[in-house]
Amino acid sequence: MTQQTGSGAVPGPMVALARRARLASRTLAQSPSSARDRALWAAAAAIREASKTILAANAKDLEASTARDAFRDRLTLTPERVEAMALGLEEMADLPDPVGRILEEWTRPNGLRIRRVATPVGVIGVIYESRPNVGADAAGLCIKSGNAVLLRGGSESLHSARAIHAAIQAGLRTAGLPEDAVLIAPDADRAHVADMLGAAGLVDLLIPRGGRSLVERVQKEARVPVLAHADGLCHTYVHSAADPGMARRIVLNAKMRRVGICGATETLLIDAAIAPSLLPLLVSDLAEFGCTFRADAEAREIMPDLPPATEQDFATEWLDAVLNIAVVDGVDEALDHILRYGSSHTEAIVTSDEAVATRFLNGTDSAVVMWNASTQFCDGGEFGFGAEIGIATGRFHARGPVGVEQLTTFRYEVIGTGQVRT
Amino acid sequence: MTQQTGSGAVPGPMVALARRARLASRTLAQSPSSARDRALWAAAAAIREASKTILAANAKDLEASTARDAFRDRLTLTPERVEAMALGLEEMADLPDPVGRILEEWTRPNGLRIRRVATPVGVIGVIYESRPNVGADAAGLCIKSGNAVLLRGGSESLHSARAIHAAIQAGLRTAGLPEDAVLIAPDADRAHVADMLGAAGLVDLLIPRGGRSLVERVQKEARVPVLAHADGLCHTYVHSAADPGMARRIVLNAKMRRVGICGATETLLIDAAIAPSLLPLLVSDLAEFGCTFRADAEAREIMPDLPPATEQDFATEWLDAVLNIAVVDGVDEALDHILRYGSSHTEAIVTSDEAVATRFLNGTDSAVVMWNASTQFCDGGEFGFGAEIGIATGRFHARGPVGVEQLTTFRYEVIGTGQVRT
Repeated sequence: MTQQTGSGAVPGPMVALARRARLASRTLAQSPSSARDRALWAAAAAIREASKTILAANAKDLEASTARDAFRDRLTLTPERVEAMALGLEEMADLPDPVGRILEEWTRPNGLRIRRVATPVGVIGVIYESRPNVGADAAGLCIKSGNAVLLRGGSESLHSARAIHAAIQAGLRTAGLPEDAVLIAPDADRAHVADMLGAAGLVDLLIPRGGRSLVERVQKEARVPVLAHADGLCHTYVHSAADPGMARRIVLNAKMRRVGICGATETLLIDAAIAPSLLPLLVSDLAEFGCTFRADAEAREIMPDLPPATEQDFATEWLDAVLNIAVVDGVDEALDHILRYGSSHTEAIVTSDEAVATRFLNGTDSAVVMWNASTQFCDGGEFGFGAEIGIATGRFHARGPVGVEQLTTFRYEVIGTGQVRT
Repeated sequence: MTQQTGSGAVPGPMVALARRARLASRTLAQSPSSARDRALWAAAAAIREASKTILAANAKDLEASTARDAFRDRLTLTPERVEAMALGLEEMADLPDPVGRILEEWTRPNGLRIRRVATPVGVIGVIYESRPNVGADAAGLCIKSGNAVLLRGGSESLHSARAIHAAIQAGLRTAGLPEDAVLIAPDADRAHVADMLGAAGLVDLLIPRGGRSLVERVQKEARVPVLAHADGLCHTYVHSAADPGMARRIVLNAKMRRVGICGATETLLIDAAIAPSLLPLLVSDLAEFGCTFRADAEAREIMPDLPPATEQDFATEWLDAVLNIAVVDGVDEALDHILRYGSSHTEAIVTSDEAVATRFLNGTDSAVVMWNASTQFCDGGEFGFGAEIGIATGRFHARGPVGVEQLTTFRYEVIGTGQVRT
């Protein structure tokens, strides 16, 4: 399949688009930062100008949609949300150019100068669901990082996605960059997704943005590298040497600031030594904001009214005002729990004991580990990356927040004065 | 397959080994550099002690083998080759520890300290063919970088590989590290390869070392990340502003120093402006060392005795004393040729014009690009990485030479003083 699609033996429309995107990617990769930034400013202006058209297209999508509640809300655009898209593109233009950075540089005894230079990835495929602004964000981040992008949005947001895409291509035209740098699936045919998953040699990187089932399908079937996270089952471990006040502030924020984001804490681990005095305070803080609980046997010995947690609860990313609670005997038991139930996303420890903190930081295989901070800080903006396209939990290339720098790869440049190898 | 194997629904012997390796990898990942280095020194000593046993095992392999010529030579061990294995392990012990390096560090306005810290990958699967020393090199590089490794050698070298493996496990024992950090396929069953290709969640990275068909199979079928290169179709471009003497030295070295390595130049691109005067000199230099040629029409107008090149020749990695020659009109035509026939491995330009050199360095999508140097410098030792496990031509994680630093990934450590997110 890879080989066939990659070599075009069975060229679906997405494969044809990918070929055009690859050609455009060469121009974009060598375009000056000023041209890419100009395209972002112009795209933002075009989105504002086309605001009415975009909202009308979105109304069509909403009319045809049977979606309800949260899903319908994600699909819905408002004048404010359109303005936010435009502002987002302008903020990307203000970021430093991630392309051409010299990442490392050294000189060999024979005088060869070797440097590692940041380069665009090439063609990035973004598969997303109903949220129309994801298309604008993804296109902007790819333009900024010198990548061409192939967008495949959800069928429900097709009209909205097309209207936004037209505005972004107008921005590329204004900057004298190839329109083909941002291309979009012509229709909602599900075969397009399969084509993208198999387009080795044409698409260099896939980024799925959406629910767990989409991400897992892409991770399972893709024949090209994928940056994504399926789960964000984050843990906060309150060690016996934690400052109680700090623990209360961090746990409340890590769970309740926003319950629906992947960096939200789903499970509280607390040391047996401190649980009898601190757990009731943590629980009452959280309950005050509407949090409910799933507690293990030891926690229920301290607070018998807490509902019991099942094995499955500890493996569940609630994305809701629900917190699993387990009492542990020290950092090693906390680490065992995380290795067993975690998703390699983000874990935090609260302690004033540096040796224990170091052991914790070294002991998980998670992309992000925090000491005395809220897991909700796992975010491109909070890391100082500017806009992010998502969070990656794989072991390679980018881990944690994926911003424009993480959308680049590198090449080695070796500069000699005629050296030959002996 | 991935899911089944990964979750052990169909646990073949390799899956069981991978589980043991994963457990060992946690100990190794947190082991001090001193213990890993001690294991390498002890393994080197054990290989020297077991020299007779290893050579006897190798004799058994050779007896059973029907291989001839180059293949038989690769399979053959001598006292010198055994000593070279031991020395290689000792050199790895002398390399700086790649684990725990702080790759980046910064502080956010809210006081959060964020650092990117190098960490082991986890479990690395190495699939190699008949060369028994590859097992020792791979095991050593993985131990040095804190990774557990699962080895699957060629069926023809099974006895040799087992004898070497025993010595390396003895080294791990001496250092108090888990023997399971280096495990080897129990027999030559081809199903073991399929198990490794599908062992997502148990094997984190696959490194195929061998011929093109092995590498391409792994790249096509693997469900886990792969570091490898299928082809090393390297180009040397002699620009019209090249110093003729430098061009002659570099082209001769790039092609003929060692014709069988992946960094050897396979195609010479030379500017039309300089070809009439320089091409005859380059050809006579090379012919003197037994090189033969495949030349395009323009080159044959200058030197009619050169045999003609077919389309297929320009797409062929000869790994032999054969050079493709094409005359081009400037750097853009050279880049077009490289994008069309290249393998994203290593390309070189010879020129005294910095603007042209810069355009060339930016214009390929190869992992390594050289200016006024021989493509044969694409090597871990020459880059200063120490030992290398191979060359990678993918776009992600490691590109170019893969040494111990390239066998690590990273985590973000976020160190706060109780910050919560607003």
